Amino acid sequence: MRFLSETTANGVSERPFTLGDVPGVLWTPAGATGGRPLLLMGHGGGWHKRAPGLVRRAERFAAEHGFAVAAIDAPGHGERPKSPQDERFVVEIGELLASGEPISPQVARHTAALARRAVPEWRAVLDALQELDGIGPEGPVGFWGLSLASVIGIPLAAAEPRIGAAVFGLAGHESLVGAASRVAVPVAFLLQWDDELVPREAGLALFDTFVSGEKTLHANPGGHLEVPAHEEEGAERFILRHLLGAAG
Amino acid sequence: MRFLSETTANGVSERPFTLGDVPGVLWTPAGATGGRPLLLMGHGGGWHKRAPGLVRRAERFAAEHGFAVAAIDAPGHGERPKSPQDERFVVEIGELLASGEPISPQVARHTAALARRAVPEWRAVLDALQELDGIGPEGPVGFWGLSLASVIGIPLAAAEPRIGAAVFGLAGHESLVGAASRVAVPVAFLLQWDDELVPREAGLALFDTFVSGEKTLHANPGGHLEVPAHEEEGAERFILRHLLGAAG
Repeated sequence: MRFLSETTANGVSERPFTLGDVPGVLWTPAGATGGRPLLLMGHGGGWHKRAPGLVRRAERFAAEHGFAVAAIDAPGHGERPKSPQDERFVVEIGELLASGEPISPQVARHTAALARRAVPEWRAVLDALQELDGIGPEGPVGFWGLSLASVIGIPLAAAEPRIGAAVFGLAGHESLVGAASRVAVPVAFLLQWDDELVPREAGLALFDTFVSGEKTLHANPGGHLEVPAHEEEGAERFILRHLLGAAG
Repeated sequence: MRFLSETTANGVSERPFTLGDVPGVLWTPAGATGGRPLLLMGHGGGWHKRAPGLVRRAERFAAEHGFAVAAIDAPGHGERPKSPQDERFVVEIGELLASGEPISPQVARHTAALARRAVPEWRAVLDALQELDGIGPEGPVGFWGLSLASVIGIPLAAAEPRIGAAVFGLAGHESLVGAASRVAVPVAFLLQWDDELVPREAGLALFDTFVSGEKTLHANPGGHLEVPAHEEEGAERFILRHLLGAAG
């Protein structure tokens, strides 16, 4: 893991890094040493590791709760080159949207392919992060990611025993059911009741599939990009409760 | 409205009352004068106005948030006499449970009959409460009630324009759909994913029916009586946000 720079503001250190060809950002309390809880954050499709909501949440977790937070660009996103398949996908989706046809089969197929690449990338990043002074191997680890980041995060949580709690949502294709049936840690699942990309029944079925003893479904009216702020705050409390044992 | 006694503890005044033949309890900050927000709380089937969870929540709303909180016994519950129909219902439900048969049609029919009596009772209680110094007619009014209290509260909220936000849940029979389609205020709806009394699809369909611009469905694994504590806390934040404009 190679750090490229460090910026400190409001008590939070922000360090862009690369691990192999994967670019990421690490946020920690400034001057952090020893161990601490770690939150891995994924971004939605078409976004990147510095998506505005993600950065605000990362800074808040580091400043207010003492977390380390890491984000990486998904394959074909942010600073990473687009493959010929990525380019074709963008064209294909544009054409489908223009003609008013449903895009979810194409989105599910393409994002599942991205996830097969992204899961081992996340696991390698997690290995490297846990070797750092200021994080270490002992603290609890959580994952937060909606939409594309759930398509990646659900198989990641199924494969990776270090992840102890997760925020997922805005996803629901049947191609995720196999992985979801191997996720047994606490899950908060955010569903948009009028999601134009994820059929409601598919989201409900995916929530039903997690074998977690503690899971919670929070659904609100509105489209894919309209998750209300109070649910973001609720998901923050969920992560704090499960990783720190903090009161809700 | 006739007050029977007053007990003050931890800064909260508790006053049992009667209005006609309806017994209730009013909790307010001790010595409250002027106006304040009012929360009406219903109890579940077989319970009463002093159900333990209800009392704890009422005391917290009064002590920590300055609310007035009122609860009344539903018809046939608590201090109120059981009608011959109430007695028959108890026997019938016992027999059905003993034989392992589904009880929800009987529960829906009986509780709908209770609701037809309870809605005008709640409206009369609300009239009387708003005439009191310490509550007044200007403050926001919320309703909180699950299960039987939703069967009563949903038609109450449909009929009563003074109710500005509501916590409902653990209910879902189609007999509620008509009233729910006239509820346009913010609703938090709590659903238990494995509710043995309310079919999951019926709960989801009822949530879908509210015409509220802001509504939020929170679903968790477990049975009818197993709503997790973090959802109670989330519902408290929901009431505070919508009645006081407080931050989530």
